[in-house]
Amino acid sequence: MAKRKTMRTDIAWSTTDSITVKGLDVCRDILGKVSLGDMAFLELTDRLPTPRESIVFNAIAVCLVEHGLTPSALVTRLTISGAPEAMQAAVGAGLCGLGSVFVGSMEDAARLLQQAMPMVDGRPDPQADIAALAGGIVDRQMAAGASVPGIGHHIHKPVDPRAPALFAIAREHGFDGPYIALMNAVAAEAGRRLGKNLPCNATGAIAAVACELGLPWEIVRGIGVMARAIGLVAHVLEELRNPLAREMKTLVEEMATAHFRPAA
Amino acid sequence: MAKRKTMRTDIAWSTTDSITVKGLDVCRDILGKVSLGDMAFLELTDRLPTPRESIVFNAIAVCLVEHGLTPSALVTRLTISGAPEAMQAAVGAGLCGLGSVFVGSMEDAARLLQQAMPMVDGRPDPQADIAALAGGIVDRQMAAGASVPGIGHHIHKPVDPRAPALFAIAREHGFDGPYIALMNAVAAEAGRRLGKNLPCNATGAIAAVACELGLPWEIVRGIGVMARAIGLVAHVLEELRNPLAREMKTLVEEMATAHFRPAA
Amino acid sequence: MAKRKTMRTDIAWSTTDSITVKGLDVCRDILGKVSLGDMAFLELTDRLPTPRESIVFNAIAVCLVEHGLTPSALVTRLTISGAPEAMQAAVGAGLCGLGSVFVGSMEDAARLLQQAMPMVDGRPDPQADIAALAGGIVDRQMAAGASVPGIGHHIHKPVDPRAPALFAIAREHGFDGPYIALMNAVAAEAGRRLGKNLPCNATGAIAAVACELGLPWEIVRGIGVMARAIGLVAHVLEELRNPLAREMKTLVEEMATAHFRPAA
Amino acid sequence: MAKRKTMRTDIAWSTTDSITVKGLDVCRDILGKVSLGDMAFLELTDRLPTPRESIVFNAIAVCLVEHGLTPSALVTRLTISGAPEAMQAAVGAGLCGLGSVFVGSMEDAARLLQQAMPMVDGRPDPQADIAALAGGIVDRQMAAGASVPGIGHHIHKPVDPRAPALFAIAREHGFDGPYIALMNAVAAEAGRRLGKNLPCNATGAIAAVACELGLPWEIVRGIGVMARAIGLVAHVLEELRNPLAREMKTLVEEMATAHFRPAA
Repeated sequence: MAKRKTMRTDIAWSTTDSITVKGLDVCRDILGKVSLGDMAFLELTDRLPTPRESIVFNAIAVCLVEHGLTPSALVTRLTISGAPEAMQAAVGAGLCGLGSVFVGSMEDAARLLQQAMPMVDGRPDPQADIAALAGGIVDRQMAAGASVPGIGHHIHKPVDPRAPALFAIAREHGFDGPYIALMNAVAAEAGRRLGKNLPCNATGAIAAVACELGLPWEIVRGIGVMARAIGLVAHVLEELRNPLAREMKTLVEEMATAHFRPAA
Repeated sequence: MAKRKTMRTDIAWSTTDSITVKGLDVCRDILGKVSLGDMAFLELTDRLPTPRESIVFNAIAVCLVEHGLTPSALVTRLTISGAPEAMQAAVGAGLCGLGSVFVGSMEDAARLLQQAMPMVDGRPDPQADIAALAGGIVDRQMAAGASVPGIGHHIHKPVDPRAPALFAIAREHGFDGPYIALMNAVAAEAGRRLGKNLPCNATGAIAAVACELGLPWEIVRGIGVMARAIGLVAHVLEELRNPLAREMKTLVEEMATAHFRPAA
Repeated sequence: MAKRKTMRTDIAWSTTDSITVKGLDVCRDILGKVSLGDMAFLELTDRLPTPRESIVFNAIAVCLVEHGLTPSALVTRLTISGAPEAMQAAVGAGLCGLGSVFVGSMEDAARLLQQAMPMVDGRPDPQADIAALAGGIVDRQMAAGASVPGIGHHIHKPVDPRAPALFAIAREHGFDGPYIALMNAVAAEAGRRLGKNLPCNATGAIAAVACELGLPWEIVRGIGVMARAIGLVAHVLEELRNPLAREMKTLVEEMATAHFRPAA
Repeated sequence: MAKRKTMRTDIAWSTTDSITVKGLDVCRDILGKVSLGDMAFLELTDRLPTPRESIVFNAIAVCLVEHGLTPSALVTRLTISGAPEAMQAAVGAGLCGLGSVFVGSMEDAARLLQQAMPMVDGRPDPQADIAALAGGIVDRQMAAGASVPGIGHHIHKPVDPRAPALFAIAREHGFDGPYIALMNAVAAEAGRRLGKNLPCNATGAIAAVACELGLPWEIVRGIGVMARAIGLVAHVLEELRNPLAREMKTLVEEMATAHFRPAA
């Protein structure tokens, strides 16, 4: 019955008169001084952002908060309609769909960028041949029969307006580096090979900017998860005030079982 | 098969070249200009906060991000240990426990404050007898056999330091109004009747400050849900880097099944 | 740092060469001998059912497995469409909506029946005045402004066919007792007062039969949760083979944002 | 705004006086006649099982119901401790951890067996060289740096007793075919190469038996998900009656933050 491994957390601890998070005293160093977005940066990176990092990080996180009636939003609304006493579970259920299809493509893009980038002393090699790296990424994806994440958009054509907006913010605050260049080169190369215009979309832009901020690709999906939780609370509220879940259910059920019913 | 009710959302919509959230153009009005906390305020209230509202709202949201190894954090860590490919579900599962016992007490406190406060022209009546209102709240809770939410703390004694910190921030930015007075009066009255020192805790302080910001009590739990999603992502990361879930499981299983096993 | 309370489970434990669940050896006593429904009964009651209990318990559990395109089924399908690699989370998300509105009414009905029934030596008093008890239940619900759970149905008119089917099964196997009588009396009394035909529905029938089986009302919702998990797996499969979630999302989004768009 | 694709479900539909599931009338064909396990088989395969299929399918499903204080069970117990009003979300949260690490290995084993087996007229080729197929599976897993799923056990040594028990049930009822032979050959071959005794475990046995039943590997995880939902309801009940979640949380938090605290 002996404890065999040490269980250890370094995130937070408290005493009778203080709470410490990531080495900062909550009451003295955080409350009233650190915004929610900067707190998220602290949670992900173990330090507060610089003012310029703050603007850029908040921009990518904000971009992920609200995408309207996504599958996740519909899940949250259907769930609150059955369990209005459990808002937390409605949001939790909504998050469960942020997998490989939606938020995962952001993670994939960040992973491809980071795995391709040659590093020198912990920083991207300034001599890196961006065009060659982009070609390699596209080659490997195509050889694997996989799509190239972070490019094109089924609604926003010819370009997802969030991508240039995010890149402009990054540029303005000093984060216009090799990952953004590589992401755009990947989009251009993939478009060239497929004979389509497939510019970098919001997903790809967020991935590239997250790389510029030094965030490891393994946590990029987490930015989407935390941001979307905010948006899903807004959908809880709207569903409570102006519901649509039940009508949706009735409509879909009627349409999807129509083949069983005799024509009127 | 006719649609019988109108389904309508007013949160967000998009065209080929724009995305609109709560009436603001995401690329022109939001990205790079609105922080994550202010975006959350927009999502909850349909408008951006004033600078003073921003500081106070961010303070209460930030206060809810990270509480260390809570049951929710353990849930997230146990879940990621079994499904490392589904970070979103690990965070979603962690949110599911933010019910009546933990985050619910914040909602309860806000509800009691708002239901007790007499209103004049949509604002708290400046003539309100705070002491009498506090007595009424304590009376009703005790008559119902219910505890008074938002007071006392099992660890932080004699006082939860976050409560005075949040009240100071509210005061400094012009939000030191009747709800905070009422919450403190409730704590004093409950303590007097029970013969204990039961000052307002973080939960009660957040509830009272949320009331001062004009947030309806029905959405107060949502602040906790969105904030905690941020913290749970940090626990995903720590679990991936320095796991404790499996050791916890082994330890607890051994302890809880010890009565079945013969003494060595 | 001392352990202050004993953690103890009596559900299951194992040694290097055996697994024991509820006192039964899994390999010797359960596998190949106990069906899934009887295993559920064992898990809920700590003993295996008699053959007659088995038929009746399986009937109510089976009745809860599949209700078509419910909100829960839509949630599961929307979730798997975004995270096809996490079937378990899609089912988990679907369960989250089985709250007060849907499955909760079954729990409410069972609770009302059990709280009203006078007991003698641990069994319902055979002298109980069923009509008077029914009147009391309806009185209390109406006084509280609450609906009477377990009666009427928005689709199945004049009667939900599952209710008489379940009652016939209970009768045939010796479980036609006072709870079923009380449930039907409640339906009749509520219908009389409201001037409508509101016969006991499947929810009310399951609740009453669960009471006849001696299941405490606190676990009645659990029968619905476990049964629906089975049905939700079937919806995962159909969604993977013949998807509808994305089309549903597109359709609903178009309809719900139509007011933003200029007429063509 | 036109509907572009047909949404269609073939699982269930209802009229005012009937409910149909998978072509069977619920009241006439299912209730009182079909057990919960057979209903699960119907949901997964679109037909009721034969008596022998029923025994074998129920055995593998039952085997997955209860594994004691697993991470999933702890998740459910921690969640119900914070949200006792939302049992459904506690079970849903518990399911979320049934991913690649635990239940996923069962899916992996079934997939490897099905992908390796040569088929003739929709059935396993009776001429198949089982030893060669097993060698190929082990080769491919080792070449990919992946473990071989379904073999060995960290507690049950030298053999997981459920595996021979399940194989005996399959044999007794006519399901002792090439997939079981292949699974055992894989275990033998992997053990030979690694110089260890690594017999087929419960996971591997369930996977092989599921293959013998003709279940596609894509739904094998679903058997685990539905079965475990039953077990998690039992953990909800025990947690409500004899809680351990809070003590676990306190213990783990103390142990994991001990390094922050000065020695007494």
